[in-house]
Amino acid sequence: MKFEEIHVGQSASRTVTVDGDLVSRFSEVSGDTNPVHLDEDYAKQTIFQGRIAHGMLSGALISAVLANDLPGNGTIYLSQSFRFLKPVRLGDSLTATVTVTSLDQKKRFIELTTECFVQDGSKVVSGVALTKLL
Amino acid sequence: MKFEEIHVGQSASRTVTVDGDLVSRFSEVSGDTNPVHLDEDYAKQTIFQGRIAHGMLSGALISAVLANDLPGNGTIYLSQSFRFLKPVRLGDSLTATVTVTSLDQKKRFIELTTECFVQDGSKVVSGVALTKLL
Amino acid sequence: MKFEEIHVGQSASRTVTVDGDLVSRFSEVSGDTNPVHLDEDYAKQTIFQGRIAHGMLSGALISAVLANDLPGNGTIYLSQSFRFLKPVRLGDSLTATVTVTSLDQKKRFIELTTECFVQDGSKVVSGVALTKLL
Amino acid sequence: MKFEEIHVGQSASRTVTVDGDLVSRFSEVSGDTNPVHLDEDYAKQTIFQGRIAHGMLSGALISAVLANDLPGNGTIYLSQSFRFLKPVRLGDSLTATVTVTSLDQKKRFIELTTECFVQDGSKVVSGVALTKLL
Repeated sequence: MKFEEIHVGQSASRTVTVDGDLVSRFSEVSGDTNPVHLDEDYAKQTIFQGRIAHGMLSGALISAVLANDLPGNGTIYLSQSFRFLKPVRLGDSLTATVTVTSLDQKKRFIELTTECFVQDGSKVVSGVALTKLL
Repeated sequence: MKFEEIHVGQSASRTVTVDGDLVSRFSEVSGDTNPVHLDEDYAKQTIFQGRIAHGMLSGALISAVLANDLPGNGTIYLSQSFRFLKPVRLGDSLTATVTVTSLDQKKRFIELTTECFVQDGSKVVSGVALTKLL
Repeated sequence: MKFEEIHVGQSASRTVTVDGDLVSRFSEVSGDTNPVHLDEDYAKQTIFQGRIAHGMLSGALISAVLANDLPGNGTIYLSQSFRFLKPVRLGDSLTATVTVTSLDQKKRFIELTTECFVQDGSKVVSGVALTKLL
Repeated sequence: MKFEEIHVGQSASRTVTVDGDLVSRFSEVSGDTNPVHLDEDYAKQTIFQGRIAHGMLSGALISAVLANDLPGNGTIYLSQSFRFLKPVRLGDSLTATVTVTSLDQKKRFIELTTECFVQDGSKVVSGVALTKLL
């Protein structure tokens, strides 16, 4: 997207189904092999009462929306904050939504809120991204 | 690790080599298929002058150190901030280091600085994580 | 305000005029006596081309809206981030606006975006606050 | 201070005594007149069991160290995060310490951890500042 085409309030989203295969592949690529993500028997005995996705899998989905959709091609990722509000469970449908909150014409900065939700509308991740568009 | 075994100043690290295979797999698992990560011809013509890793790949490595090493098993991830300082290039050796900066005995909170470096010692990511240990 | 009366999207604002007296008093109470805030002759020769308010004066106004208006009485301030986007000049009318972005019923957490604007509508500070209401 | 004189690990501190007069003046300058800061009888009946200082008073002290001491004159304040860990009580001796964690020669960015402590060594505020030195 061109900087000039972006306005405050604009948003973009992506949804994925968080299945066991996706979580296993995220474990491999990140190296995070904590059993709460991989071992249902172990995970059942934790406060989560079953396998959960990695927090940073939601982070990765958010970064995909930023890099591919809004701002999209040419995005330079300057900073990101995440608050992890609730666990994401296997089988959840996870939607990442980014919304432009401010634009700096001179520096070509674009600030966005970055949120993830699951199928019942609960927010599972909140945060803010600062990007620059070449 | 047990909360009682953790002290301010303690740190843990992991290093990976960022090769084309790792970056391709991160593209698949995240859905971030921006050509700056995947297409050397395209990437050569950007300001990066070659393929770069996803910022969130550094984030994923940091989260693996937190979940597996320090605090390790039983970690609940509450929040994370990242500042992306420099690009990580294919072939780079990427080290994530987390260091405990404060402990809250009552709430069992552990705060850590989270940093990534490449082989020449340059810091490529800085940030702060807040975790809780069950 | 009672937690039960607060909903996502709710907002509150306060406006002050940033005059020389307010800036001088903020210098005294904070101890920040940088001449860019106090000495017009000095400040004219900086890139700001005149006296500017302290960034944290905007922060203080935001914290007043949180503590007095929304969430108001009983607010526990857990965290705050600020990005300082543009200088605030003497004579500016400064408005701090906070808007609820998420509620956690169980933990009684309230997350809000926190922004300051000057009279022409330019955003001068953006940020996020996390509060808890007793 | 000149950018070239600043190194990673460098730090600066200021200490103030948080008395009733300072807290009252911060209430006036910020507009935050919440009775937990001003009314001992009211404050005694809250979970704080007595008057406490404004969180942003610690923030103001941190900003004074940044603007006056390190980086000092010529500092441009880009961003700041705060986590408020414990209340600051009347009579407390409050020390703000900032420590350089990274330098970007090209952009002249200086990142610092920003912390406040009270007399018994307890950390009451943690955070990160990003500044630029002209």
